[in-house]
Amino acid sequence: MLKLPLGYRYGAVYAGLRKQEADDLALIVPDRPAAAAALFTTNVVQAAPVRLARQHLKATGGMVAGILINAGNANCATRTGEKAALATSRAAAKSLGTKTKQILPASTGVIGVEMDPKPIVDALPAAVADLSADRFEKVARAIMTTDTRVKMASEEVPYPGGAVRIAGMAKGSGMIHPDMATTLAFVMTDAAIPARALRDLLKQGAQSSFNSLTVDGDTSTNDTLALLANGASGVKLNPKEQEVFGEALTRVLESLARQIAADGEGARKLIVIRVTGFKNAEDARRIAQTIAKSPLVKTAVGGSDPNWGRILCAAGYSGVKFDPAQIDIYLQGQPVCKKGLAAEFNEGELKTKLNDGEVRIEVVDRAGGKGEARYFTCDLTEGYIQINGSYRT
Amino acid sequence: MLKLPLGYRYGAVYAGLRKQEADDLALIVPDRPAAAAALFTTNVVQAAPVRLARQHLKATGGMVAGILINAGNANCATRTGEKAALATSRAAAKSLGTKTKQILPASTGVIGVEMDPKPIVDALPAAVADLSADRFEKVARAIMTTDTRVKMASEEVPYPGGAVRIAGMAKGSGMIHPDMATTLAFVMTDAAIPARALRDLLKQGAQSSFNSLTVDGDTSTNDTLALLANGASGVKLNPKEQEVFGEALTRVLESLARQIAADGEGARKLIVIRVTGFKNAEDARRIAQTIAKSPLVKTAVGGSDPNWGRILCAAGYSGVKFDPAQIDIYLQGQPVCKKGLAAEFNEGELKTKLNDGEVRIEVVDRAGGKGEARYFTCDLTEGYIQINGSYRT
Repeated sequence: MLKLPLGYRYGAVYAGLRKQEADDLALIVPDRPAAAAALFTTNVVQAAPVRLARQHLKATGGMVAGILINAGNANCATRTGEKAALATSRAAAKSLGTKTKQILPASTGVIGVEMDPKPIVDALPAAVADLSADRFEKVARAIMTTDTRVKMASEEVPYPGGAVRIAGMAKGSGMIHPDMATTLAFVMTDAAIPARALRDLLKQGAQSSFNSLTVDGDTSTNDTLALLANGASGVKLNPKEQEVFGEALTRVLESLARQIAADGEGARKLIVIRVTGFKNAEDARRIAQTIAKSPLVKTAVGGSDPNWGRILCAAGYSGVKFDPAQIDIYLQGQPVCKKGLAAEFNEGELKTKLNDGEVRIEVVDRAGGKGEARYFTCDLTEGYIQINGSYRT
Repeated sequence: MLKLPLGYRYGAVYAGLRKQEADDLALIVPDRPAAAAALFTTNVVQAAPVRLARQHLKATGGMVAGILINAGNANCATRTGEKAALATSRAAAKSLGTKTKQILPASTGVIGVEMDPKPIVDALPAAVADLSADRFEKVARAIMTTDTRVKMASEEVPYPGGAVRIAGMAKGSGMIHPDMATTLAFVMTDAAIPARALRDLLKQGAQSSFNSLTVDGDTSTNDTLALLANGASGVKLNPKEQEVFGEALTRVLESLARQIAADGEGARKLIVIRVTGFKNAEDARRIAQTIAKSPLVKTAVGGSDPNWGRILCAAGYSGVKFDPAQIDIYLQGQPVCKKGLAAEFNEGELKTKLNDGEVRIEVVDRAGGKGEARYFTCDLTEGYIQINGSYRT
């Protein structure tokens, strides 16, 4: 059961951007303008709504009265991108009785196809009419593209002054045919936290979640992770309390990141890679990421093949210097490589364990350094090829 | 018709390392010890034969009397790796009447399985007996693993003092089930060039060929590219003549690299990526490599989908700063993106052109910088998953 924060309403309608009739326009509206922070794609090719969202957050110092999201068109690499993003944000602001710069726009869908703002503008009154505190999941579904499962997570944190709630939704990972390219995540809380502190908390939480996640290594043009805090709980957090909040936020973000990896395009399995004992966190992270991106590791996991040689090999070309003779590797907790050499194990039993929906890979450097990292990814299957290799018609 | 250099003999036999009966042990023997240079994998996990080959080249200052190659076992991450590599090199030296340090060992096959030297030692007399000047292709076949086609290239260069010949063979790209992991390439010439100059020529030639090639981004533990010059043509090249030689060598290496990409695991198409107009060669190279590694680009090419948004997107996350509004993209010579926006083209016609066995992607920065690069890769298909995702039995 989701623990929804107080003071938010959610609404979604079908505006006609998708071919199949399913909600493709969504609003998330705090009862009062909320402090906000967001992280965006690092791709130098950035969609118009990403650029506009940045501008708006800057102009308001982090204050959001509404999130406007559409699926079906990424509004990226388009002649009229700026205009369309601005026109739809303006219309949303008008419908909600707020300022345009307090609207946070986000789009997901095809790249390079002009986005007509009209269907969105026309559908906005219906989206506003749909707003309701209990339609969190409806919005979480409206933003889905190739996702096969809705992705939501929440936490409740008790404080002396009362409880606060954090609830997040996410879509994506993997890019959807044709060219759909985005991870979107929206996290709402009813705690009272200023925008500046929110930004730090979000950055910190993203490190071990959205920044430790890969499906195919392709960084999209539209990635957006936004956090809103409307203070509706009446609980104002001091810096010490914000730390505890940060931990809960991180749990929400990690849960969403795991859900995204598990639902990667064509994926049958979530892969959780843990790397420990290396010199520093950066080294551990590079190794974890290189293993997470290796098609050979990902296909082996798909085939339930305890193929530790590929894991060791990927670590070896990560760019990190280490002594292979000091490396132990575990699959599902079973040692498969000790000191860089084959360990004895029952291959039949391990294969069965590798059929699980979650596969744990651990790489340990016996050097015993403090550097550790964790990374989420998924297996690589024919499904990925089928989703991404089919004709664009 | 291959133009084989004078003064080399080739032999191959079945030593029993492969399951199916096909040659898996090969020798390449210059009539007299040849000047030699080699490039090896940059993976920190390196197979025993790679380490030994390095030592040998160092000890002799680049002098090789025989190349000893086995398929079926990579002799990597093995307890007895050093011993096995040394024992087989010793046996080869004895059979050929030369010194152990003049043997260049190379292995390809499964990682992490102990390699018994006995079958190799036992089969060496037969391999020596098989040596003949006309068995170049036989050896090129013996070193194949998942390769579906034999890979050979040659050049003849006329000089005032007479012609010299360069002939190369290569195997691999992609890693073969289970864990087979290697690109091996051996290039022989009958020109007289000292080892020091050979090294420079090889490095230079590798840059635009073997170092501009990716199938799955996985750098193997056994990669070896060796160049031998035995001087049997009697033609000694001065520095100016060596430059012309270098160009011919580069053509041989590029031909081999193209053949490897075209025969990548599961590949139906060679992809040639050309990037021009960027600030410098390094930027162009990073962009070309990022596009070449993108699973979304590779699956789109597999599906003959003129999906330029994915190409632009990959360029965007390469880490290179550029202005997307200055980017043009061509597929098979057809403009598909102009100034970062969709160009008009006949999609049906272009799809048909994308069914070709060779797909050309060009990315041009209108900024008009001098930085350019070319990269070879292949499409990503279900075949790759099937080859690499099946059970290890």
